[in-house]
Order: sequence, then C-alpha cells, then structure tokens
Amino acid sequence: MQQVMARIRAFRDERDWMQFHDPKNLAVSIAIEAAELLEHFQWKDKTESERHAADNRQAVAEEIADVAIYLLELADNLGIDLEKAILAKLDRNAEKYPVEKARGVATKYTKL
Amino acid sequence: MQQVMARIRAFRDERDWMQFHDPKNLAVSIAIEAAELLEHFQWKDKTESERHAADNRQAVAEEIADVAIYLLELADNLGIDLEKAILAKLDRNAEKYPVEKARGVATKYTKL
Amino acid sequence: MQQVMARIRAFRDERDWMQFHDPKNLAVSIAIEAAELLEHFQWKDKTESERHAADNRQAVAEEIADVAIYLLELADNLGIDLEKAILAKLDRNAEKYPVEKARGVATKYTKL
Amino acid sequence: MQQVMARIRAFRDERDWMQFHDPKNLAVSIAIEAAELLEHFQWKDKTESERHAADNRQAVAEEIADVAIYLLELADNLGIDLEKAILAKLDRNAEKYPVEKARGVATKYTKL
Repeated sequence: MQQVMARIRAFRDERDWMQFHDPKNLAVSIAIEAAELLEHFQWKDKTESERHAADNRQAVAEEIADVAIYLLELADNLGIDLEKAILAKLDRNAEKYPVEKARGVATKYTKL
Repeated sequence: MQQVMARIRAFRDERDWMQFHDPKNLAVSIAIEAAELLEHFQWKDKTESERHAADNRQAVAEEIADVAIYLLELADNLGIDLEKAILAKLDRNAEKYPVEKARGVATKYTKL
Repeated sequence: MQQVMARIRAFRDERDWMQFHDPKNLAVSIAIEAAELLEHFQWKDKTESERHAADNRQAVAEEIADVAIYLLELADNLGIDLEKAILAKLDRNAEKYPVEKARGVATKYTKL
Repeated sequence: MQQVMARIRAFRDERDWMQFHDPKNLAVSIAIEAAELLEHFQWKDKTESERHAADNRQAVAEEIADVAIYLLELADNLGIDLEKAILAKLDRNAEKYPVEKARGVATKYTKL
C-alpha cells in the first residue's frame, strides 16, 4: 500500500489539487463514489447482484477503486494509519457483536 | 493488508454473516458508512472541517475504518486485487485529467 | 405544501440558519438523511424490508420527513417549482422508458 | 400534490414496476439520486455552489425531482401523510433546537 499511497499523492500534487482536498470535500467525494458503486446493484435482488458483479467485475472494480482512492487519501492527510484503525475497529465490533449472540442474526442484531 | 483481510474474514465467518454479505448489501453498507463519515463535516466550511478532523481524529478514523472494512470485504469477495485496481484507475484518471489541463482547476475541469 | 414551506422557512429563520443553508450544504444534508433512511433496511431482504417499514412506520416517516425538509428548502431557495419539476421529469422519463419496452423489466432496462 | 402523486403511481403501474419498488429498493434509489444531486456541488465552495445552482437551475431541478419522485412514492406506499410527517418533525426539531440556544450556531450545536 506504500507504493499505492505514493501514486495517489503524486497524482494529486502534479495537478495542484491539494487545495480542494480538505476533509469535507474528500468525505463528499467518498459518498458520491459509494453511490456510483451502489448504482450497479439498483433494483437487483441478492442473486441478480451476485451475477451482475461476476459479469461486470472490471466496472465494479473501478467504482471500488474510486471510493478507495479518496478514502486512502483522507486517512493519509489526517495522519491515520488505516490498518491500525481497521484492526482497532474490529476489536470494538467484536465487543459489540459477541459471537454467541450475533451468529447468523446480523439482520436483527445490528438493529438493536 | 493480508493480515487485516484475514481478520475481516474471520470476524464475518465466526458470526456466520456471509449469508448477508452479497454485493448489494455490502454496497448499501459502504454508502451508509460513507454518510456517517460525511456527517462529521455537515454544515462546516473548509477551515472548520480541517479543525474538526484534527480535534476528532479518533472518531473520524473509526468512520473511515467502517467504510474500509466493507470496501475491502467487497473487493475480496469478488476476487478483485484492490491495489491493482487502484493503480489501473489512477492510470485512467491520468488520461482523463492531463496535468497541463487539470492543474489547479479541479473544480471546473471535473464538471466538464 | 404552502403552509409546510412557510413552517420550514420560519424554523430556519428564527434560528438564523440561512447562512449555513447554501446549495452544497443542503445537498450534503439530503445525502446524510437519505442514508439514515436507508439504514432502516440495511441487511434486510425485500420481505423483511416491507415488514420492517410496516412495523416502524413512525420512525421511517421521520427519516422521510428529514429528507423532505431539506429537499423542499433547496427547491424553495433556488426558486424551483417542485411540482412542475416533478411533472417535467416524469415526461422525460416516459420518453426514456417507453411502456412497451420497460414493462416488467426495470432491473435490466435501467442498466442499459 | 394529489395530481403529482397520481402521475407517479400511473408512471410506475403502466410499466408494472411496483414489483421492484419495495421500501429497501426505493431507499437505495433515494440515496443514489441524492448523491447525483450532491455531485453538482463536488469540490465547490459556498460561493461557487450558489453560482453553479443559479447557472444550472434546470439540471439541478431535475436531480431534485428525481429524489422527490422516489421519496413521494415511498411515503405513498407506506400510507404516510408527508405533510403531516414534516410538520410533526418540525415540532420535534423545535424542541431539540430551541431558538435561544440554536440561533446562528447550527454548525456547532447540531454536532453536540
């Protein structure tokens, strides 16, 4: 990921785009790209969404990449170690959703 | 990221949650978490968003992690190499936004 | 809707909030509230989402209202007649999705 | 709005699309359209977003209409009186944000 992060920074700085990349603007862009990813599955049920993803892996990969680029840049700009942040969040989620209570009941349990 | 991905898979499988994690449901969850990240900057201008992010780095890092966890899992489930997908997307973006035209004008250029 | 719009304007102006309600900030808030509405149906399939909406009509109505309040205000601030805009959009959609081609095939047709 | 609602229902039913319009799918579509509206203001500051909205009122009106169409349909399908729901929500917001505390401080107050 070090090399990827270096490419993202270089892409932005060659274009002098840091001036636009404050946390709010990056969060807005993450939300916009997340909706473009979601659009792939609009109106589809579970089976259709799986088939669509398999048949359009390249296009879906591009939308995932768009979200990831802004997300990685936001973490980088804020000095956040994303791997550490993910591991810490998984620890907290493990407390919130203990295995014995959460097994197979994500739907209802997450709503409680 | 290998270790992180192993933790994400284990967290899900211990809870038998794969049944809920089809591409559509993961894309929905990415969009929901992206909006929670964005909520941190609601009503704020550029300066206020920068100050807020600096003053609440831990809370913002958790929201970034929430988006990242579902995004990494979606890529993993679809057999997408996220690093390769990001590098390929940066190549395409470089063609779409050539340095000489895009420099310092992100706002207007991206809207054309 | 005239009375509703008057209440929305009064609520904002009593709090001197117009200064925060530029088009970008209202669009951000619409997206955030839309995600809170969507959260009601996270991880649920079609049948579960219908049952959840029926069992939680009051809570769902509040989220719908939150989206509507910012959407109505944005239209009002921009001098847009929302009813006219909706009717014009339905005319355009009718051209885009002719009945004979679109009948019963929303899923695939909208993706073309 | 009665006439508008009748047009929305007719548009859907002529195409036999009710089968796709469960609450989850409509909430997904509201979020997608909200992001397309937000895209108009991506990377723009307050002044630029105001100028853009004034210069592109027709295009912005179409995105607002897209959100409104799905939002009105969702309320209609669930038997929710949208005007009543909005007025009830404004009453609750008035308790949550009393004038004397909220005046001119939306940014900070809403985050508390």
